[in-house]
Amino acid sequence: MSIANYISKSMEESSWIRKMFEEGMRLKEKLGEENVFDFSIGNPDLRPPDEFFDAIKEICFKPKANCFINEHGYMSNAGYPETREAVAVKVSEDYGVPITGDFIVMTCGAAGGLNVVLKTLLNPGEEVIVPKPYFFEYTPYINNHNGIITFVETNQDFSLNIENINSAINKKTKAVLINSPNNPTGKVYSEKEIKELAKLLNDRYKNNGRVIYLINDESYRELVYDGVKIPSILKYYNNSITVTSLSKTLSLAGERIGFITVNPSCDDTNTLMSGLIICNRILGYINAPALMQRVIAKILNKSVDINIYKRKRDLFINGLVNAGYQVEKPDGAFYIFPKSPIKDDVGFVRHLLKYNILAVPGVGFLGPGYFRLSYAVPEEVIARSFSKFKEAIESI
Amino acid sequence: MSIANYISKSMEESSWIRKMFEEGMRLKEKLGEENVFDFSIGNPDLRPPDEFFDAIKEICFKPKANCFINEHGYMSNAGYPETREAVAVKVSEDYGVPITGDFIVMTCGAAGGLNVVLKTLLNPGEEVIVPKPYFFEYTPYINNHNGIITFVETNQDFSLNIENINSAINKKTKAVLINSPNNPTGKVYSEKEIKELAKLLNDRYKNNGRVIYLINDESYRELVYDGVKIPSILKYYNNSITVTSLSKTLSLAGERIGFITVNPSCDDTNTLMSGLIICNRILGYINAPALMQRVIAKILNKSVDINIYKRKRDLFINGLVNAGYQVEKPDGAFYIFPKSPIKDDVGFVRHLLKYNILAVPGVGFLGPGYFRLSYAVPEEVIARSFSKFKEAIESI
Repeated sequence: MSIANYISKSMEESSWIRKMFEEGMRLKEKLGEENVFDFSIGNPDLRPPDEFFDAIKEICFKPKANCFINEHGYMSNAGYPETREAVAVKVSEDYGVPITGDFIVMTCGAAGGLNVVLKTLLNPGEEVIVPKPYFFEYTPYINNHNGIITFVETNQDFSLNIENINSAINKKTKAVLINSPNNPTGKVYSEKEIKELAKLLNDRYKNNGRVIYLINDESYRELVYDGVKIPSILKYYNNSITVTSLSKTLSLAGERIGFITVNPSCDDTNTLMSGLIICNRILGYINAPALMQRVIAKILNKSVDINIYKRKRDLFINGLVNAGYQVEKPDGAFYIFPKSPIKDDVGFVRHLLKYNILAVPGVGFLGPGYFRLSYAVPEEVIARSFSKFKEAIESI
Repeated sequence: MSIANYISKSMEESSWIRKMFEEGMRLKEKLGEENVFDFSIGNPDLRPPDEFFDAIKEICFKPKANCFINEHGYMSNAGYPETREAVAVKVSEDYGVPITGDFIVMTCGAAGGLNVVLKTLLNPGEEVIVPKPYFFEYTPYINNHNGIITFVETNQDFSLNIENINSAINKKTKAVLINSPNNPTGKVYSEKEIKELAKLLNDRYKNNGRVIYLINDESYRELVYDGVKIPSILKYYNNSITVTSLSKTLSLAGERIGFITVNPSCDDTNTLMSGLIICNRILGYINAPALMQRVIAKILNKSVDINIYKRKRDLFINGLVNAGYQVEKPDGAFYIFPKSPIKDDVGFVRHLLKYNILAVPGVGFLGPGYFRLSYAVPEEVIARSFSKFKEAIESI
């Protein structure tokens, strides 16, 4: 083997997921795409809002004074000043904390943003605490920068278990990375949970002066239902950083556009900001895609119709409960995470394949005994699947 | 310091470059942008070709059948099959080697592509041989993935010194990374040099069966003048990989769009391709920006007017020679690399500042005794600078 051992090992480990994916592809080829119920992928299916296309039109085709600068060339590694300012206005309002453009770094999506943050913070062997079930890409993201991922159990309802986080902290702990709304559970951590977590980290800091950063991956920030609000980690904890994406809010997952927000009350913000901007460069991102930066600056207050996702969630939950599944109604994101009717969730997901249903076993997210369904699919696909789900659970 | 030691060390080391950049900014503020001769940055100044805007118009605004798929969402991590195929057609012709879309990975520019290749190949402590002067970002790119960069001297005219490369190879050598056309020298390695390098690597391979990859960073591939052609490394060496960018050819540096081409004759191409695609994902790039992938697929045979760059090169070389500088006429890229009239190139670049000229000292590229000038600036700026260059050299 001439490629890196770590990569070829990763390939082997993920081979059962790939096998399932390939089985799904075969199924689609055999039966036709419309006869397979694919709930396995979290790819926003809604079209971006009309304002997205209006913004492209204005930027690319509005006649303007002959301009010396090539508007599709490099800009500062942190992003266009105008875009950073526009983002700052929005997050100031969202977080209830005054933030200027100086505390924003535009990134190639949230995945890019998280890698930039982790590269900036982690010395080799330093630890990042992650509550599970978790988004499985955090493992390579942390390993990319020679960090170590430390998992903590959440409570039965997937809420944060503060005592578990407390026990996991040691001298090597550099950060706690949460993901709210959560992939795969759809859980939104409450204001009470965030306050308790902030208190724990503040107490630890007072005891020994060592900074533990609190990072929230807010990729699904705007996808919340029934009036739920995402509490602001910046309001309750100084050394906090959020990573956000426009992938879901504006249905732009393929365009790789997101941003990092640093709490202006962080220790030594100058060093931290310079570090983030350098890492955006040296990791090879260089800058977030130019045109998309200019487009999203104009439409930060727009979003796809969130009600469509809410309707799909409600439809899916009702249908599954009626079919005999045990499932919580999540507050956010576009996933549901039902209990597997048998302990072996991989076995059950394989069983679902016989009914042309594609799902992801919970064990892939370190949430064994559950399976993940994405409802970023047309409503009629969800509706047509219920009889299949029923057959599947009754035949087990 | 609460950020990673490596990053804060990088910040200190690059502080004199930053200081010079800041001095330049101060100068521009004080004197007005038009009175500063800024040759320090390689940011393409030409507008993208009209066909770029036509392609955006067609993709975003042409009425089409109502389409289920969100065209701005995720696609395969390797890129759209149609884009990969279009790129394959182009590179097959360029390289004189038949290549299909299966051997292409679309990336976030060449910087993203290089990081993906290095992450895929390098085990901790493995070495990458790089001829110098070199593009200084290769150091962090290789370090990002725990590799070690090993420098070899080129000849006086910056051509490859094959014997030096031979001597540098050891058991830890994983790859030779070249950059042709070269940043900062503008050098294009000849067919003879590439053949000799390929022969060396083939001989080494025959002796011990250990693969050493040959990687060419072809960011400036299309920017060559006077009928010069970039020889194909794929034609002469099996275990070869090229990394290309549309940043310069189409003036899209800020849009982050490029690609990796793998020689179909590589050892174990399946593993290599899977590794590259996984690394594109786990490094957080996920995929090259969606809209740009679709745009460039339509205009791969277009480019900015290369003659404009040629004209600027000729103008600049003539002017500098007349002013008393010693400088080779390079075959490609948009840089010239004159000899510093004094040994201390940092000192000379500081001296140029007094004449409102911004340049980059050669030592930053491990090419001490030289300085780099970018001619990606308007011709009139180049023309106006000659009297200043003359004053500078005469006052030393």
